[in-house]
Amino acid sequence: MPVIDLTHRIRPHDVRAGALTLWRNAPWLRDSVVLAVVDPGVGTPRRPVAVEVSEARTVLVGPDNGLLLPAAHALGGPSAAVRLRPVPPIAGVPAGLGATFDGRDLFSPVAARIAAGLSTLDQLGDPIETASLEDRPIPQPVHDGRGGLQCEVLWVDRFGNAELNARPSDVAHLGDRLSVLLGSAREPVPARTAQAFGQLGEGELGLVTDSYGQLALALNGAPAAEQLCIGEGDPVSIGPAAG
Amino acid sequence: MPVIDLTHRIRPHDVRAGALTLWRNAPWLRDSVVLAVVDPGVGTPRRPVAVEVSEARTVLVGPDNGLLLPAAHALGGPSAAVRLRPVPPIAGVPAGLGATFDGRDLFSPVAARIAAGLSTLDQLGDPIETASLEDRPIPQPVHDGRGGLQCEVLWVDRFGNAELNARPSDVAHLGDRLSVLLGSAREPVPARTAQAFGQLGEGELGLVTDSYGQLALALNGAPAAEQLCIGEGDPVSIGPAAG
Amino acid sequence: MPVIDLTHRIRPHDVRAGALTLWRNAPWLRDSVVLAVVDPGVGTPRRPVAVEVSEARTVLVGPDNGLLLPAAHALGGPSAAVRLRPVPPIAGVPAGLGATFDGRDLFSPVAARIAAGLSTLDQLGDPIETASLEDRPIPQPVHDGRGGLQCEVLWVDRFGNAELNARPSDVAHLGDRLSVLLGSAREPVPARTAQAFGQLGEGELGLVTDSYGQLALALNGAPAAEQLCIGEGDPVSIGPAAG
Repeated sequence: MPVIDLTHRIRPHDVRAGALTLWRNAPWLRDSVVLAVVDPGVGTPRRPVAVEVSEARTVLVGPDNGLLLPAAHALGGPSAAVRLRPVPPIAGVPAGLGATFDGRDLFSPVAARIAAGLSTLDQLGDPIETASLEDRPIPQPVHDGRGGLQCEVLWVDRFGNAELNARPSDVAHLGDRLSVLLGSAREPVPARTAQAFGQLGEGELGLVTDSYGQLALALNGAPAAEQLCIGEGDPVSIGPAAG
Repeated sequence: MPVIDLTHRIRPHDVRAGALTLWRNAPWLRDSVVLAVVDPGVGTPRRPVAVEVSEARTVLVGPDNGLLLPAAHALGGPSAAVRLRPVPPIAGVPAGLGATFDGRDLFSPVAARIAAGLSTLDQLGDPIETASLEDRPIPQPVHDGRGGLQCEVLWVDRFGNAELNARPSDVAHLGDRLSVLLGSAREPVPARTAQAFGQLGEGELGLVTDSYGQLALALNGAPAAEQLCIGEGDPVSIGPAAG
Repeated sequence: MPVIDLTHRIRPHDVRAGALTLWRNAPWLRDSVVLAVVDPGVGTPRRPVAVEVSEARTVLVGPDNGLLLPAAHALGGPSAAVRLRPVPPIAGVPAGLGATFDGRDLFSPVAARIAAGLSTLDQLGDPIETASLEDRPIPQPVHDGRGGLQCEVLWVDRFGNAELNARPSDVAHLGDRLSVLLGSAREPVPARTAQAFGQLGEGELGLVTDSYGQLALALNGAPAAEQLCIGEGDPVSIGPAAG
């Protein structure tokens, strides 16, 4: 069974970024076992869980801190969940290795057993209510009632594109010429929709549909987030082009 | 079939660095399918292509922006090429994912089909003239007529060695003691040829044959490019040792 | 046979960090062939070696610069060693590639031959005394005779935890409340033992048993080493809590 490393680049403790990464990749997580660890609460009472999404034939294994739920919802919603029990000692691995790495000591063996068909969820933990799982809802864009849309930066990719929590259909009514109010700026800047970075002129701000289907603020050949001084979590308002 | 990740460390938009990386690795790219993506023009009229090098039983798949040609030439020269057609939708992958990632949506499926023997080039695209492919020739060192050689820094590796576009045979006539004029400096600095970094004294500048067979400016245990303030694309002149 | 990439993040020339990484992972290196390369002396008379640890059914391949010995000792001690001979040219790989990358040109082919059962150590090199192998002993903590323990920072992990060369049993006599003297500081700071980062209050310094079983200086959700201005190799003294 192939193992795919989605990423090892989530910043320490950044549960939000981890949750968004899984959520963004949900279409490719069907028929799989997902092992995810961003776990600042390891060793505390936060629960270790396995969450089943029967509609997508997928199980997500990790800490119950909101990391798993956005992807689980995107896949169809949790159908069952267990609080994981410790796994038996593994031959050849010494004891006394500390309690700080459930990713290695609990989640990985559990995910491996599920993926190999060696254990069912019931054998690995005690059932819990799916409604009790900690959620971390994806922020939704808000229509301001004047034709504009209040968004948030979800992610800045390695090219500096600033992915928003909006899709092209959310701003289709505004046409191709728009204005964008960035973070705490006072004045909006002009922008236009584009299918590709290369369609934008030098310095022209684009709203490009990114490779996950989200709108992203982008420049042609330059890191938009850095040049616009915006980052993850910052507000962005999209409105009609200034008269 | 094993998949080898040559690198994911090319800087955004740096087609030159990507082309040089493939070219440098050409000896190991025989009997393979090469998938390469540094693609700032994705979504624009730049062509998506597959390039066959029959002499090396290799096909290179990627954008027609010069990324593929230096390696194709090093492998024996392109024998055929097609402009790729879009691939049919893949079951389980949603539509509407934007037009910014041909690496995922076009080049990877194409490379996989070729590698698995499921498709021939003809089935994946329309033939184009190999002479029409965009090239990005490797810069050649220039003999200055006075025994010296004008070179260029091709690459700075993670140890700070500055690889030049010259081979040991290009400077063999100069002997083991040389002088090197770096970038826009006015005065040359002494250097000597060495087989290994550890043969150099502290602070002594060496011309070492690197692991790709190119000459590289190197120090012993220190990053030469940083300490000499030179970078990729900078000129370097190699001449006889100062009298 | 699966190939596991332990890390490619050792800093250039940092043999100490490489040796500690192997040593730290020794429990998982049983029944394996270990290929390790941090090799600033490549091309010099430093010996290329393969070291067998029969007790752990493991062979370590790499430069004889101290990189391999701490792990070999942790696995049970070297039982045999050979100085590697050059490997025959490999079909399809050109000559003239320089002498700077034994990792590719010597150690990898040797490790592959051993892992595949194609060659025994005797066939790959000439026997040498295991006692002649260069060692790089793990620094041991020193009891100061007044109940305190003089330690050293072995490693700063990506979360900023500062792993020490001591285990929980080394300070068990001091109880849960301790004081720690960092680097060249004059005054000790209070600290307490904890099983998990999340048990620590904000800004509270913890001595946590890390995932390798070593004591580590840690903060809750923050990089301890950076905030305490200590780094690898720095001294740390642990004593009883200040009266």
